[in-house]
Amino acid sequence: MLIVQKFGGTSVGDLERIQNVANRVSKTVKEGHQVVVVVSAMSGETNKLVAYAEHFSQNPARNEVDMLLSSGERVTAALLSIALNEMGLPAVSMSGRRAGIVTDNIHTKARIESIDPTGMFDELNSGKVVVIAGFQGVDDNGNVTTLGRGGSDLSAVAIAGALEADLCEIYTDVSGIYTTDPRIEPKAKKLDRISYDEMLELASLGAKVLQNRSVELAKKLNVNLVTRTSFTDEEGTLITKEENIMEKPLVSGIALDKNQSRISLMGVKDRPGIASDIFNKLAENNVNIDMIIQTVGHDGMTNLDFTVPKNEVLDAKEVMDKFLEAHEIQDISYDDSICKVSIVGVGMKSHTGVAAKAFSTMAAENINILMISTSEIKVSMVISEKYAELAVRSLHSAYALDK
Amino acid sequence: MLIVQKFGGTSVGDLERIQNVANRVSKTVKEGHQVVVVVSAMSGETNKLVAYAEHFSQNPARNEVDMLLSSGERVTAALLSIALNEMGLPAVSMSGRRAGIVTDNIHTKARIESIDPTGMFDELNSGKVVVIAGFQGVDDNGNVTTLGRGGSDLSAVAIAGALEADLCEIYTDVSGIYTTDPRIEPKAKKLDRISYDEMLELASLGAKVLQNRSVELAKKLNVNLVTRTSFTDEEGTLITKEENIMEKPLVSGIALDKNQSRISLMGVKDRPGIASDIFNKLAENNVNIDMIIQTVGHDGMTNLDFTVPKNEVLDAKEVMDKFLEAHEIQDISYDDSICKVSIVGVGMKSHTGVAAKAFSTMAAENINILMISTSEIKVSMVISEKYAELAVRSLHSAYALDK
Repeated sequence: MLIVQKFGGTSVGDLERIQNVANRVSKTVKEGHQVVVVVSAMSGETNKLVAYAEHFSQNPARNEVDMLLSSGERVTAALLSIALNEMGLPAVSMSGRRAGIVTDNIHTKARIESIDPTGMFDELNSGKVVVIAGFQGVDDNGNVTTLGRGGSDLSAVAIAGALEADLCEIYTDVSGIYTTDPRIEPKAKKLDRISYDEMLELASLGAKVLQNRSVELAKKLNVNLVTRTSFTDEEGTLITKEENIMEKPLVSGIALDKNQSRISLMGVKDRPGIASDIFNKLAENNVNIDMIIQTVGHDGMTNLDFTVPKNEVLDAKEVMDKFLEAHEIQDISYDDSICKVSIVGVGMKSHTGVAAKAFSTMAAENINILMISTSEIKVSMVISEKYAELAVRSLHSAYALDK
Repeated sequence: MLIVQKFGGTSVGDLERIQNVANRVSKTVKEGHQVVVVVSAMSGETNKLVAYAEHFSQNPARNEVDMLLSSGERVTAALLSIALNEMGLPAVSMSGRRAGIVTDNIHTKARIESIDPTGMFDELNSGKVVVIAGFQGVDDNGNVTTLGRGGSDLSAVAIAGALEADLCEIYTDVSGIYTTDPRIEPKAKKLDRISYDEMLELASLGAKVLQNRSVELAKKLNVNLVTRTSFTDEEGTLITKEENIMEKPLVSGIALDKNQSRISLMGVKDRPGIASDIFNKLAENNVNIDMIIQTVGHDGMTNLDFTVPKNEVLDAKEVMDKFLEAHEIQDISYDDSICKVSIVGVGMKSHTGVAAKAFSTMAAENINILMISTSEIKVSMVISEKYAELAVRSLHSAYALDK
């Protein structure tokens, strides 16, 4: 098989861990596979360089930040290649440029536009392990760019796509995707497989293992993604297309998001376009709206409830106050003490009663549901924050995820 | 004027010093000059990376060492550019590649083959300060290479040549070239100007400020080189072609080299080619011969004296022992307690009596001269090491260098 293995900052955090990574790569090669490795900067390095830049400027030129930050991954790539060669495993390191990664020119958050895998294939075909500096590419003019947060994961997925690799393994400090957060429900089980869409829902609902950008790209390029830990030999979780998952569980996981606040608008003037005005203004001010509920009021008024991330409440308040001053809204209330519990599973598509079971589980625990939103493979409920853990454990048990 | 300014590791040793460099560059720009800056890695960084590599391998792949080490200069270049932009001075950093520096493919000690200055001129013409990561280039295949010891100086000189810059300023922690080592003779004076050839002689005789490779390249490319300190505003020393030096001093400087040992071969068989055999064998074993004296012996024998660097005496001994065993030499003696004192000056070419004054100065101090060698602009004498400082001070005074 041709396998892309990506190791993040903590997996290459010091020289000893880089040696561990070399051992793992060597093991994979000895099992008969071709390996391309994508590495991040040693943990702490990127933050150090950012602090250096901020010493000189609160708003450093973004092209210079890219020149600066891209050096960290080059160091790790060269060191890992040296370690592999020393073990008798021919290896060569490549910058993003040498790996053929071309991006747009939006410095510090560039998007990959194309990958020319010729250079990588040449080295693979000559029997070498190819070690690539993640997180970086070059624009059309040859300037170094970086891909922003989670950029090395993106590099790995895009490279796996360009090479048509059989597998793209993302090594982190957690061992895979769980049915729910094991710190809340110790009976949580690691999933063997999960579909791209389920993973996307879980990620946007608060599961921190993978960023949506990477999962979306894997889905688009049809890359089989595995998330696993570099600290043990434990198998991870395969994220793949739905067709590859034989037995489709009704519910794959329970997600909890405590980072939401509810904003309630009462007595909203019932003129055409008012909701659109409100949400456009919020978007212009970079406030991210999640759930929205509109209820019919009386006297030509409606009520509007929505949730926003906790750290965007102040921005939202500023926008809302303008509508209040314009007498388009009668009253506003803010509620920080809520949370969002979600159940996710592709099985919902073909089974009825999944949502009903969630509601009856809440009822059985006397938990009041404040808001509900559903998609094809997800049911989300906003409840009082104090019931968060109870709700997660009850649902985990109701759908028999601990079995 | 178009000025290339090169700042070494101690000049960019920490963030505060990088800010000082930015201030100096800014001052030069405000005086109406165009500036290209060449920087080294922050002091300590390169050693740290070398230690990292050596953690994994005593003999790391040289192309990977280049990938690793070239990151240090990129960091400094980006930081300096950020600092300059923050001061309102438009600036852009460039890797060796972006600066158009193409080298051969001898990793870790590559030689510059060509520089395409188009990219640098484009940025200069748009009003920017160009900040270049020194010490690095790329080979014909686009692989990163580094230039070895003193590589950033070479980058600066080569870039000054390619840009036809008016001046190439090398900033170090010493303020220029002195008539002799001020630690030996406190009356030593800083030279305003010195010719390339004199500088080459002084450098190979022990003056540590500039490496011969850089001076040779400056001479070849006709680059006006200034060596000065980044810590004060003191003027430095201009190293230029002889025609640019109006008043040619008889003697420009006195150099002292304590790092030599004398090897004396007695009773060398007087067969054709014996000297050539001896010195070829020494060269094959990487022993660097400096001065050689052959004296006629008797009974068809000669004596041969030569000097080698102290740390190569053991290698030389191994070679010599073979000749001893083959009975081609009767006896060998080694003398560690010698030194070499040299006087250097272009004025010698047109004046007689310069060497004679040196010998009579030694005689007046009762210093016995063991070996003598002369070139067009240099007289070197090997004497007992205990007279080293006395000889330097006497000669410094005899040629009125303290006036």
